[in-house]
Amino acid sequence: MSFRKFSSDTDVIAFARQHSDLFTSEESLQVEEIGDGNINFVYRVTGAANSLIIKQALPYIRIIGEGWPLSQDRVRIEAEALQLEANHCPDLVPQVYHYDAEQCAIVMEDISAFENLRIAMVERKQLPLLAEHLGRFLADTLFYTSDLYLDTYEKKSLVQRFINPDLCKISEELFFWDPYCDHERNSINASLRTDAEKLWQDSALKLEVARLKIKFLNQAEALLHGDLHAGSVFANEHGTKIIDPEFAYVGPAGFDIGTVIGNYLLNVAGQANQRGEYAERSDYQQWLLAGINTLWHTFEQRFRQHMSVETRDPSLQLGEYADWYISELLADSLGYAGTEMIRRTIGLAHVMDIESIEDTERRADSERLALTLGQILIKERTTLSSIAEVIDRVRGELYCR
Amino acid sequence: MSFRKFSSDTDVIAFARQHSDLFTSEESLQVEEIGDGNINFVYRVTGAANSLIIKQALPYIRIIGEGWPLSQDRVRIEAEALQLEANHCPDLVPQVYHYDAEQCAIVMEDISAFENLRIAMVERKQLPLLAEHLGRFLADTLFYTSDLYLDTYEKKSLVQRFINPDLCKISEELFFWDPYCDHERNSINASLRTDAEKLWQDSALKLEVARLKIKFLNQAEALLHGDLHAGSVFANEHGTKIIDPEFAYVGPAGFDIGTVIGNYLLNVAGQANQRGEYAERSDYQQWLLAGINTLWHTFEQRFRQHMSVETRDPSLQLGEYADWYISELLADSLGYAGTEMIRRTIGLAHVMDIESIEDTERRADSERLALTLGQILIKERTTLSSIAEVIDRVRGELYCR
Repeated sequence: MSFRKFSSDTDVIAFARQHSDLFTSEESLQVEEIGDGNINFVYRVTGAANSLIIKQALPYIRIIGEGWPLSQDRVRIEAEALQLEANHCPDLVPQVYHYDAEQCAIVMEDISAFENLRIAMVERKQLPLLAEHLGRFLADTLFYTSDLYLDTYEKKSLVQRFINPDLCKISEELFFWDPYCDHERNSINASLRTDAEKLWQDSALKLEVARLKIKFLNQAEALLHGDLHAGSVFANEHGTKIIDPEFAYVGPAGFDIGTVIGNYLLNVAGQANQRGEYAERSDYQQWLLAGINTLWHTFEQRFRQHMSVETRDPSLQLGEYADWYISELLADSLGYAGTEMIRRTIGLAHVMDIESIEDTERRADSERLALTLGQILIKERTTLSSIAEVIDRVRGELYCR
Repeated sequence: MSFRKFSSDTDVIAFARQHSDLFTSEESLQVEEIGDGNINFVYRVTGAANSLIIKQALPYIRIIGEGWPLSQDRVRIEAEALQLEANHCPDLVPQVYHYDAEQCAIVMEDISAFENLRIAMVERKQLPLLAEHLGRFLADTLFYTSDLYLDTYEKKSLVQRFINPDLCKISEELFFWDPYCDHERNSINASLRTDAEKLWQDSALKLEVARLKIKFLNQAEALLHGDLHAGSVFANEHGTKIIDPEFAYVGPAGFDIGTVIGNYLLNVAGQANQRGEYAERSDYQQWLLAGINTLWHTFEQRFRQHMSVETRDPSLQLGEYADWYISELLADSLGYAGTEMIRRTIGLAHVMDIESIEDTERRADSERLALTLGQILIKERTTLSSIAEVIDRVRGELYCR
């Protein structure tokens, strides 16, 4: 049987019954299409007591159609990345019940008990375990897929399994090119046009972005999630689930860490002009900044622990090397956080944290703040020498405007 | 027919006749085994007017036997690398007549009109085109296989084709680990023992070597030859041939450039204690240093030309980015040149340029010079800002001892 798109609820239900043991043959099942609709089809199948998710990838981008083909290999990459992440942090990813190469489909755990992090942040929810979970996810997935842990054979084979040019190409253009020139794909608030034009003239900034780009293309450091923005995270008071690693490839570890930090800071920038009591907004900004601090410290502590206990790399016997490695990770993370903030502000895909501000001028004010913070992070990434300094620098921009 | 080792001259001759059109069916052919004998079998087949080379790889290391298995995929990698290099510099590599996947054999051009560069240098031959040829080979092979030229799809597919863990693992250990500890594989002149022990205590040096190692493992910048020491180069007054790219993989460009520079400097260090008139030795050292200068300038000029004319990378419209890229290449090259000098002095595999000095103390003096230069190149690679400065620094060490 070769690939065919599920064409009815009956198709989806048959597939769910065939590839999981969550349902009895007697119970009736319901199907709901819950994909956000851009690229893939996502179905929830619900029975009397259980439910699951089926994600199917078509050989093209869903909202555009056959005119924009996209390799279905992405669904293999997503399934294998989820399984690999589950080896290290099983509680932080949805469980894969079945991956079907022929139907380009994944049958997996339903995580509807958790809320999308972007929405939670717009609603100012303080999730007590979030930052620690994200820090642990980053430390474990990035360390155990790097040369600090794997031997050369395992590492090279990981690189080979996760060659992912279709999706790398998308990130390469949207992160590192479009926002730095007057590209037709960009979407720019009219009030921000002058700021964008000024940025396009900033050679010092563009040099740093080009350096981050070549590192994104070349540095096969660790298996990345590759798209770790707030929309890929689901969370509640008790737990966190990180989904959608279809952009996974072996790249610079700081790209994942930076995308997460960038998304925290995009919300910080959005809060500056969200409606609501000032104190309440400010409290949430403080919670976000404290979150970045916790996230980084959890990450660093755990990564250092792995470097000293779990490594097979004899170079790590040298304390100076571990210190240098961490300082490089921090610099890279800040740089990529900056590129995430800038591309979400004047590039193609914006974020609800700022887009939901109805008043154009207030929105522009948050966008301007996001642009400023993004540029600071990129340009000062090697001189900001600790996360505390970074947070002070952000506070300075927030409160001394 | 599955793989079998050629077991007689008749086998080799039949293979040569089958896979080339250099010989008539009437002429009688002679076979000579000419491999240096470490890893593969290499045969020269000679007829009345023509000759060719057949290289066959066994599934283990020849001198050790079946106890050290080695993937025969290395011969595919060598054949494909030679063919790819020939796309850019056909005059600088032996032509591949036939690659035979089943017999793990390459039938190729006989380059016996050229002399092995290591021997030529020990004999103080001044080859007028050598440095320019090496610079051109490096510029063309490294540029056209990098993200500065290839699109993401072509580049990722190149990475995949040249995953080469068996041979990368050898370099990783011999270059970046063994010489920096008291490893049983090391071979150390007794007079140099104290120097080696001092080096093993030098944390600042070991940190820099660890940084070069992780770059060697992670940075998929361009398709490297991977083993570009003087023994892989054949040359005469009229031309140059670069052979044996079985270590080819996509790695940091500076590794190839640095290996070449390191081999020039190993000969400089050897000349300091070779028998013969002082003036003659000194002349040759000057010729070698001038060669490094020509090599780098040829490389830089040509690479810059490609960056401005041949690139598809829009970031290179920014002059600052091209300048930064070149300065990184210089720093990397110096670092890797240093690691080549050190591993050839206190590691497993030494070079004839120094080994051929019969007097132990005089040999130790050259070895000490090689060690010193190696450490300078590694530690000062980011502060030495031009090749002229590098050469001055080397001259300083040579003449102010």
